[in-house]
Amino acid sequence: MKTIFVGIDLGGTNIKIGCFDAQLNLIAKTSTSTNVDMGPQVVVDRIVHTTGGLLQDNGLSVEDIRSIGIGTPGPAKYCDGIIIASPNMPAFKNVPLRKMISDHFDRPAILENDANAACWGEYVLGAGKNVQDMVFFTLGTGIGGGVITNGKLVHGFADNAAELGHIIIYPNGRKCGCGQKGCVEAYASANSTAKRAVEAIEKGAKSSLKKLLDEKGTITSKDVYEHLANGDKLAKQITDQTAEALAIVCINILHTTEPQRIVFAGGMIAAGNILLDRIKYYFNKHIWSMKSETVEICFAALGEDAGIIGAAALAQQISAK
Amino acid sequence: MKTIFVGIDLGGTNIKIGCFDAQLNLIAKTSTSTNVDMGPQVVVDRIVHTTGGLLQDNGLSVEDIRSIGIGTPGPAKYCDGIIIASPNMPAFKNVPLRKMISDHFDRPAILENDANAACWGEYVLGAGKNVQDMVFFTLGTGIGGGVITNGKLVHGFADNAAELGHIIIYPNGRKCGCGQKGCVEAYASANSTAKRAVEAIEKGAKSSLKKLLDEKGTITSKDVYEHLANGDKLAKQITDQTAEALAIVCINILHTTEPQRIVFAGGMIAAGNILLDRIKYYFNKHIWSMKSETVEICFAALGEDAGIIGAAALAQQISAK
Repeated sequence: MKTIFVGIDLGGTNIKIGCFDAQLNLIAKTSTSTNVDMGPQVVVDRIVHTTGGLLQDNGLSVEDIRSIGIGTPGPAKYCDGIIIASPNMPAFKNVPLRKMISDHFDRPAILENDANAACWGEYVLGAGKNVQDMVFFTLGTGIGGGVITNGKLVHGFADNAAELGHIIIYPNGRKCGCGQKGCVEAYASANSTAKRAVEAIEKGAKSSLKKLLDEKGTITSKDVYEHLANGDKLAKQITDQTAEALAIVCINILHTTEPQRIVFAGGMIAAGNILLDRIKYYFNKHIWSMKSETVEICFAALGEDAGIIGAAALAQQISAK
Repeated sequence: MKTIFVGIDLGGTNIKIGCFDAQLNLIAKTSTSTNVDMGPQVVVDRIVHTTGGLLQDNGLSVEDIRSIGIGTPGPAKYCDGIIIASPNMPAFKNVPLRKMISDHFDRPAILENDANAACWGEYVLGAGKNVQDMVFFTLGTGIGGGVITNGKLVHGFADNAAELGHIIIYPNGRKCGCGQKGCVEAYASANSTAKRAVEAIEKGAKSSLKKLLDEKGTITSKDVYEHLANGDKLAKQITDQTAEALAIVCINILHTTEPQRIVFAGGMIAAGNILLDRIKYYFNKHIWSMKSETVEICFAALGEDAGIIGAAALAQQISAK
């Protein structure tokens, strides 16, 4: 019998599943659509079926599984393994997902916030290796996060810690989807970055992005970085605002939990050093002069696999208990 | 032989010392001037001598001591028990205070940041009782803080976590002593609250505080709250700005470590509900609508003894190891 840990990243559109050995090496992974409208039982059946198939294709059996980790978006009562409600999975209300999965496989399972799972993946095997205190941001449609202090994920009183995208950096600033104003997400997510560019063009700012906007009817943060690389002035200005917002949130995090490393992940890090260097520039511009800070600001290392790796690593932890 | 834990609060002006029994009941306390200019060895001698006298006066002996906790301002390498440098204790450079005290009494000792010690005191015996996740602010000359997650103080990578006064809430706002702009300390400390009132009067704002300023040449945050209680309009405006700044920092903390309770301490809480109610008002005004938050925002319960209580409670922890 082998030792297999299963890591599952359950999203509103796709389910990613990975099988890992005892050293957390990826043996095989797959992805399938969630079919979220069919409801929790169908989704669980899909997970069970797909996992079984993945193992079989690789000469393994469900008997080899030691434990299962599942990352999924909140709000959830993760410590109880229950999805309370999820904007992207409307049919999931008070679903005891952990128990359903655990019962099916007759193995221990753990439910974790998807950003926390990815954070834990980077912590164990990626950009956070060899540190005890790390903070993690995902720059996507919104901004998610994870906080690790003393080598442990911070869950908070009601399992809703690390909603880092909703740290207010400009009170009474841009409206955020959450109902607050001035959240870092309203400036520096991939969506907000693109949106600020569109708004500026609509207000008459000159930019090589205008032609694209006229043609496609929309632009993405990727477009912004591409035009920045080609020397567009508006793209530079938009990127600077994104970087400055992220730098201020880095400073605020530093003065709260003082991580050794702050790791950015998500589609937007494809921008590369052109973004990272500007975040560091604004961090140094705004940081105090009381002492010189040595926090490392860097990009994630595991790409899209961080979620399944982190879920498997969390599964390994509960199996060791 | 009895079981005594000693809690010491070492400041630039005074040393407070308390002796506690095994249930952390205060047996006796005293205070003496630090004589900080005389250097570390003299200060240690004063601590040893004063502690001995305090015990003797209460029918106890140094033999009864189990362990000693010391709270002191940073920057320090607390985990190594060394004061690196302290703005209020210029003669203290790389002083191994923990070892000096421990050697003198031949007992284990622990060194902790003074705000962290007070935070721990409130956590164990005061406003933070019966919670696992708490954040603590001291509103004094500056703003200090402490963060507890999963029942543990967060120290951060370089022992400088919880510098909560330097969370930036208004980028490019008021200049802070730390070199940053827009720190919450630059708006909502006792000093900054008074300073904003003085600035407004000097700019011509009408206020009953003007007469006081003309007479005394200065005003304090206490004056602001007294005049607020008497219906002064400027005092209300100044207090509202203080409360709004503190509310925004509460929101940002909530989205980071999600404490169950946020506790404010320091001289300024003497203002009472007139301040606390406004903090809660602005918290509710600015907080997201994604879910209803149940964080309790309250004032500290232990007054000036929080530091020695917390130091003794930390001493108790190391003695239990």
